[in-house]
Amino acid sequence: MNVKPLYDRVLVQRVQSDEKSAGGIIIPETAKEKPLEGIVRSVGPGKLTDSGENAPMQVQEGDKILFGKYSGTEITIQGEEHLILREDEILAVIED
Amino acid sequence: MNVKPLYDRVLVQRVQSDEKSAGGIIIPETAKEKPLEGIVRSVGPGKLTDSGENAPMQVQEGDKILFGKYSGTEITIQGEEHLILREDEILAVIED
Amino acid sequence: MNVKPLYDRVLVQRVQSDEKSAGGIIIPETAKEKPLEGIVRSVGPGKLTDSGENAPMQVQEGDKILFGKYSGTEITIQGEEHLILREDEILAVIED
Amino acid sequence: MNVKPLYDRVLVQRVQSDEKSAGGIIIPETAKEKPLEGIVRSVGPGKLTDSGENAPMQVQEGDKILFGKYSGTEITIQGEEHLILREDEILAVIED
Amino acid sequence: MNVKPLYDRVLVQRVQSDEKSAGGIIIPETAKEKPLEGIVRSVGPGKLTDSGENAPMQVQEGDKILFGKYSGTEITIQGEEHLILREDEILAVIED
Amino acid sequence: MNVKPLYDRVLVQRVQSDEKSAGGIIIPETAKEKPLEGIVRSVGPGKLTDSGENAPMQVQEGDKILFGKYSGTEITIQGEEHLILREDEILAVIED
Amino acid sequence: MNVKPLYDRVLVQRVQSDEKSAGGIIIPETAKEKPLEGIVRSVGPGKLTDSGENAPMQVQEGDKILFGKYSGTEITIQGEEHLILREDEILAVIED
Repeated sequence: MNVKPLYDRVLVQRVQSDEKSAGGIIIPETAKEKPLEGIVRSVGPGKLTDSGENAPMQVQEGDKILFGKYSGTEITIQGEEHLILREDEILAVIED
Repeated sequence: MNVKPLYDRVLVQRVQSDEKSAGGIIIPETAKEKPLEGIVRSVGPGKLTDSGENAPMQVQEGDKILFGKYSGTEITIQGEEHLILREDEILAVIED
Repeated sequence: MNVKPLYDRVLVQRVQSDEKSAGGIIIPETAKEKPLEGIVRSVGPGKLTDSGENAPMQVQEGDKILFGKYSGTEITIQGEEHLILREDEILAVIED
Repeated sequence: MNVKPLYDRVLVQRVQSDEKSAGGIIIPETAKEKPLEGIVRSVGPGKLTDSGENAPMQVQEGDKILFGKYSGTEITIQGEEHLILREDEILAVIED
Repeated sequence: MNVKPLYDRVLVQRVQSDEKSAGGIIIPETAKEKPLEGIVRSVGPGKLTDSGENAPMQVQEGDKILFGKYSGTEITIQGEEHLILREDEILAVIED
Repeated sequence: MNVKPLYDRVLVQRVQSDEKSAGGIIIPETAKEKPLEGIVRSVGPGKLTDSGENAPMQVQEGDKILFGKYSGTEITIQGEEHLILREDEILAVIED
Repeated sequence: MNVKPLYDRVLVQRVQSDEKSAGGIIIPETAKEKPLEGIVRSVGPGKLTDSGENAPMQVQEGDKILFGKYSGTEITIQGEEHLILREDEILAVIED
């Protein structure tokens, strides 16, 4: 089974960030808006431009990303927590 | 009888998602905004671009889709629950 | 007498939808936002594009349409209920 | 004396709609938003397009129009009720 | 001393409208939003278009204008009431 | 030390307007929104246009300007009150 | 480990501004909206333009910047306070 996001949406698998192993990124409990970590599982074809084409996506399958706490729509696929986000809701890619 | 949506609207037949059979997609009861499943029954000609043309649609008749809980307008056609959505309200296509 | 809508507006005559005869479309009493039925009586020349031209309209005189409950402005013409809507407020065309 | 509206604005003289004579248009007392009738007395040169030109106006001096109840700014000229509206606030032109 | 407005702004000197002399324009006390009269004293070079140029202004120094009651920013220059408005807040030019 | 504003932002040094010396400009205590005076100390390279270039700025270092009371972000540089504004928040340039 | 911001986002390390050493910039305690200081640690490839390209960024790695108090999303990387901002939330670059 496959979930293919439309346009500039991205399917992301939620990763419980381990405060020690994740290369030193700690998201403070007291932060205004805590970002969360995830792995990109599937990307849409890109946002529709004015000329009717799809703008290229910056993230790809397998990327480890940070996204805002209140972003996206939650779904569970085969027991795993996922979200469908717009690419613009992704704050950054984490490269190990 | 035919319901032909205008522009980027889509006619979707509501599918009661069976938590077991649907390839493993479970929408948690506790989710912030629960997505719903449906089958595309009819698609509009596409959104009007600035140049006055219709941008191509990404979904087509028969596609199984996920959409947000509060999206669209409900109508009942021959006893079946349907919705009219904008294509941008569709989160993803589910491929079995 | 003639009522000619401007730009992308449409003059629509309200039709009391008969739950049985209308080819099976039933709008549930409990729906979030109940769509209504009408017949297009007159269409404007189209929305002004950035280049100063009128984009073509998708509906035409005589079309049977669905529109949202809170759309448009009501007027009575020769005893009949009408509305002036923007074309974008029309959800779909019903073809018998 | 002359009042020349700017851009896409229109000077409209308010007409007290006579429920019988006006070719059959009756605006119901119970309507959500009652449209009003008026005669266009002066039109602006048109809305400024992106390219810095004036888009052509669809109404002209002498047109009998319908407009929304809460549209525009009232002024009295030589004892007569007038309004300055944007052309986009005009719902339709009434042709007798 | 000179006050030169930027972009599409206009410096306007407030004129206390004399209900009798002003060619018959009376602004009713009971109006929803009473327009006010003024004389244009200085105009900006025009709004910046997408291509980075200044769109031409429709009003010029000396024009007598009508503007909305709650428009602009008040300043007093040499004892006289003035306002800085955007040109789009000007409803009409009054030609005697 | 230098504070270089980005894009269409401007660094402005706050000037306490002397009601008598400033060529006659008095900002009334009772004004709806009182404009303030300042001297431009540094300008950004200009707003990014759609084509990815910087639109030219209309103000330059040394200009005496009027700006709205609630505009911008305050900072103190070497004991002097400054603000960082967007150029569009500048109402006018005062030429002596 | 690397945090690569997407599009026009910027990774900024928070700097506790020393009121004396910072070349004289003092952010008043009573300011409406107090700007904060930081060092740019990583920049995205630029905002997507209408033509589907990335507009060039104005800040680069190592720049000392001012940004609004309520801007961005906080994360802690190897014990240091960081933020992910959009470039447009950066008020100015401080050159020593």
